[in-house]
Amino acid sequence: MTQVAAPDSLLAEGLARIAEEIDGAFDALLAVPDDARARLVEAMRYAAIGGGKRLRPLLLASVAEMYGVQREAAIRAGIAIESIHVYSLIHDDLPCMDDDAVRHGKPTLHLAFDEATAVLAGDSLHAFAFEVLSDPATSADPFTRIELVRTLGHASGAQGMAGGQMMDLVAETSEFDLQTVTRLQQLKTGALLGAAVEMGAILGRIPPEGRTHLRGYARDIGLAFQIADDLIDHEGDAAVAGKAVGKDAAAGKETFVSLLGPDRAREQARMLVEQAVGHLAQHGREADLLRAVARYIIERDH
Amino acid sequence: MTQVAAPDSLLAEGLARIAEEIDGAFDALLAVPDDARARLVEAMRYAAIGGGKRLRPLLLASVAEMYGVQREAAIRAGIAIESIHVYSLIHDDLPCMDDDAVRHGKPTLHLAFDEATAVLAGDSLHAFAFEVLSDPATSADPFTRIELVRTLGHASGAQGMAGGQMMDLVAETSEFDLQTVTRLQQLKTGALLGAAVEMGAILGRIPPEGRTHLRGYARDIGLAFQIADDLIDHEGDAAVAGKAVGKDAAAGKETFVSLLGPDRAREQARMLVEQAVGHLAQHGREADLLRAVARYIIERDH
Repeated sequence: MTQVAAPDSLLAEGLARIAEEIDGAFDALLAVPDDARARLVEAMRYAAIGGGKRLRPLLLASVAEMYGVQREAAIRAGIAIESIHVYSLIHDDLPCMDDDAVRHGKPTLHLAFDEATAVLAGDSLHAFAFEVLSDPATSADPFTRIELVRTLGHASGAQGMAGGQMMDLVAETSEFDLQTVTRLQQLKTGALLGAAVEMGAILGRIPPEGRTHLRGYARDIGLAFQIADDLIDHEGDAAVAGKAVGKDAAAGKETFVSLLGPDRAREQARMLVEQAVGHLAQHGREADLLRAVARYIIERDH
Repeated sequence: MTQVAAPDSLLAEGLARIAEEIDGAFDALLAVPDDARARLVEAMRYAAIGGGKRLRPLLLASVAEMYGVQREAAIRAGIAIESIHVYSLIHDDLPCMDDDAVRHGKPTLHLAFDEATAVLAGDSLHAFAFEVLSDPATSADPFTRIELVRTLGHASGAQGMAGGQMMDLVAETSEFDLQTVTRLQQLKTGALLGAAVEMGAILGRIPPEGRTHLRGYARDIGLAFQIADDLIDHEGDAAVAGKAVGKDAAAGKETFVSLLGPDRAREQARMLVEQAVGHLAQHGREADLLRAVARYIIERDH
């Protein structure tokens, strides 16, 4: 069975620590140039610094720590995956996509700057992710670096996150069943959460056959995360969420909540989290932070 | 001095061959999935297949061939750099950017599909570039692959192409001098053309110190290319160019042509091409295609 639950303080410390480290690394790596590109880097910084739960870097760094990886390498890989996440939010918020006005409690990038700058800042963060990963500072071993690139490239493209976003667009005009909604979410959110866990294991030089339980963990928390997101959208408070809520129903999209009802959806998320924790049974206290993250995923309100 | 000029047939064959190979590789690699992501991959194919001069893959493959690289590796790396080029055109054509209706003689992607799909298809081609490069099919050597990723990531991000695009946006409301326009173009177009040449040398396992002359060649043809583009925009025929012309003057942007006048601009481009060819003096007939490409750059009408 599962180990002793991690105390809340472990999670609180983990969240505070990763937030500070990721903000610090973005600040150091995204220096504003003294020419007409200044506005572009300012826009990248506006979107990348000081917002978000940093869940993907936290997952990545927690797995990496379990395997004794140097913290600096984990933070650099965390910057890369967070850059992909942030660019996807910037593009997702555009008027031609979700047309959102608020993100992380402040105006979305295309409102704070302009649409063209938002497109370019997203594209630049996208390239930045691969620049950071391919730099020897992330790992002296080229094989480790190229595996990180390969994992993140696959998870973010048409066969991963972007493919899920496309299904999400189609969902507005189609009647998706539970199986299709599950597939959509496994791509849209699950692929990148899975990549976070996978990248931590790659830094730890764990061979693919040693990552099976971590993949199971990532798959389960990925779905639980999305169900929790659907519940926040269904019943949440926009001020607490830091973004608009009630959007799925307004757009006529099927979600886990619309298909299962809120009670069964909540029960399903709880079950998935327990299953995720179960995948970590071979680990001792060193996996406590991963266990705490799994539980946090359905307890958060934003 | 320069070698014997390459015959026109060498260039014509080179252009036809690379066009067929790149189209074939995109066709094989971008298989349409049997689910709601089909529309995304259809959009990627619409933008990627059957259009463009394939100048970047041609440069990359020409350098690679000079160093005896297997053709398949060069084509895969060519697919990656062309994917970056195509994604940048898709995003550049969006209503919030240049708002263009025609590209390669057909409706731009956001008109043929829709804006949201165009944003996602661009993002997906962006990720696809790094997926292709990081795959062992491109090179069995992880160091070669990670150097390709690093070069392309740097050339396409805020310190390369995207940075140049940002300067281009700023140019609409600023008075840029010749030095700033040169810097803008070195980033916007030159960075990716330079990466094409560099990636060919990386595949050929030429160490950085052995690439100096190739970098000189790339820098010169990059500027010549942009001057030629400015001349096409200034005096070209939209039907021949396959895109709108006269846009820079309408947008009030300074270009090489507005700053130098068409005659001096044409003379400058000619000089740059001769200088580019001069950088290849250490090579024999094996560099004839690169010499022909340099001359083609200022003779083309689209």
